[in-house]
Amino acid sequence: MPKKKRVVVIGGGAGTYQVLMGLKKYPFTLSAIVTMSDSGGSTGKLRKELSILPPGDVRRALIALSNLPLAEKTLEKLFDYRFHGKGSLRGHSVGNLLLAALTQITGREDLAIKEAGKILAVSGFVHPVTLDKTQLVAVLENGKRIVGESKIDLRWQGKEYAKSPIKKVLLKPNAKVFTDAAKDIKNADLIILGPGDLYTSVVPNLLVEGVNQAIGRSRAKVVLIVNLMTKPGETDDFTASSFVKKIRDYLGPASQKLSHVIVNTSFPDHVQTLAWYLKFSSRPVRDDLLKSEGVKVIRGGFTQKGELLRQGNLQKQL
Amino acid sequence: MPKKKRVVVIGGGAGTYQVLMGLKKYPFTLSAIVTMSDSGGSTGKLRKELSILPPGDVRRALIALSNLPLAEKTLEKLFDYRFHGKGSLRGHSVGNLLLAALTQITGREDLAIKEAGKILAVSGFVHPVTLDKTQLVAVLENGKRIVGESKIDLRWQGKEYAKSPIKKVLLKPNAKVFTDAAKDIKNADLIILGPGDLYTSVVPNLLVEGVNQAIGRSRAKVVLIVNLMTKPGETDDFTASSFVKKIRDYLGPASQKLSHVIVNTSFPDHVQTLAWYLKFSSRPVRDDLLKSEGVKVIRGGFTQKGELLRQGNLQKQL
Repeated sequence: MPKKKRVVVIGGGAGTYQVLMGLKKYPFTLSAIVTMSDSGGSTGKLRKELSILPPGDVRRALIALSNLPLAEKTLEKLFDYRFHGKGSLRGHSVGNLLLAALTQITGREDLAIKEAGKILAVSGFVHPVTLDKTQLVAVLENGKRIVGESKIDLRWQGKEYAKSPIKKVLLKPNAKVFTDAAKDIKNADLIILGPGDLYTSVVPNLLVEGVNQAIGRSRAKVVLIVNLMTKPGETDDFTASSFVKKIRDYLGPASQKLSHVIVNTSFPDHVQTLAWYLKFSSRPVRDDLLKSEGVKVIRGGFTQKGELLRQGNLQKQL
Repeated sequence: MPKKKRVVVIGGGAGTYQVLMGLKKYPFTLSAIVTMSDSGGSTGKLRKELSILPPGDVRRALIALSNLPLAEKTLEKLFDYRFHGKGSLRGHSVGNLLLAALTQITGREDLAIKEAGKILAVSGFVHPVTLDKTQLVAVLENGKRIVGESKIDLRWQGKEYAKSPIKKVLLKPNAKVFTDAAKDIKNADLIILGPGDLYTSVVPNLLVEGVNQAIGRSRAKVVLIVNLMTKPGETDDFTASSFVKKIRDYLGPASQKLSHVIVNTSFPDHVQTLAWYLKFSSRPVRDDLLKSEGVKVIRGGFTQKGELLRQGNLQKQL
């Protein structure tokens, strides 16, 4: 029996969730490496109150990889449920609460994730990129700093964001890669970066000490999935080549591993969807990639449901 | 194959938990009917904030009847875990939170309990005695009223409790028995009342409209398990016969079904245990039952671990 290909997905948030949901249909050994700098919402509250790592992105990745039989889907639904109504629980995700409780029970974040993985019958692995507590900091072109992932993520809701784009992001204090995450990256056959908010979901992983080194030492092909849309306050006016350039910058020497870029060439299915995005100053990312970028470009109409992950499409090209 | 005997345990709290834990080793079909007037702690907070039924006693009964394989015991442990540390989650039981979330998801308390039962692989049934929202009220001998289960439960911590014993308890507003609970009571072969706090765990069930009628219509033997210790503020100075008398009062015409009373005759195993209880003005309940009470009395040294439920003991006598 040929050995299963080891695919590592690096990111966090909804993009990583979608990629994992698609990839789990194939005979890969999947690992999700997720960012640990989230500071908003239910996750931020738990992080502050209980001094634990932010559980939000871990939760989403676990749900994506859950393989509970149909009869036990309630548990999955429960894990993803958010309290509504009044009171102190409002907005809390049940999965976040479970991860927080498991962290208190086991005394360790990585064991908590493993236990949650067992409960959800996860096939594959979910690793926090680091076990260190750290904050994401954005340095703007005008020199100002924004501290905290959620403040950076949501800066577009404020009035001043347009004034100055993000120059760079960094972690404060420094964080070291979690051993299991580094091991899976080193042993990977394929590493997928993104899609997801560039500075708040994808890059924060590359800022963790040891991640780029692990990518550099692996024999994996590295694939970047370029976002479909720009994100106000983060990637306004970005084209596909801007994404490639920024990712290369943050990969450092490991950028030589970047071998494929997947780019969307279609507009959203429905004009209403496009109108909704435009209302938030979010625009389709234009494909301006040339052959000279030194990577193989895979193009497709990925806003059409399922297109990205249609077997022929991916497997033929990689 | 002979049909399994149907045993219904009526109560709430730690006593019911222990009885269920013991009975689940035998080939009975078990139903737990639990009180719905709890108003304290994590349960009280959820009840207030989310307008749901109090989940605490349901949670304990579900855990007692859980039959998860050893490899999945984490889920059981998680269900019973209470958050520590600072913040708004402090003191909340994870199981209570899950029941609250399932109530929001399913829109119905009884369905929430059924779903939780599936997740925990419960063998048997856990029914709230009522789906109506109600408060327990204690009327004292001096005419004063205490409203809310937790205030009655914890009145011994105040200074004035000794001044006036409880004359009676009632529900405000009235509550009607939950159909599934009534059905299981009517079809029972054996109904077990207690052990548990008389006025805050056992009697509140009998105050629900339709419960006594269901007991009266069943062909079950009714067994009262008398508490090992008195409870300050509720059953100070109670002897075994006081318990029997009060239960008969609250059963009304259904009291003719009371056929067996189980009474402890031994002191706690360790003198330290006894000393601990005495510190809280809790004393061993004295066995003053005579044959003339019209019930069969089963006596044993039940403070010795496991004695109550040793097969020969129970099955020979019933």
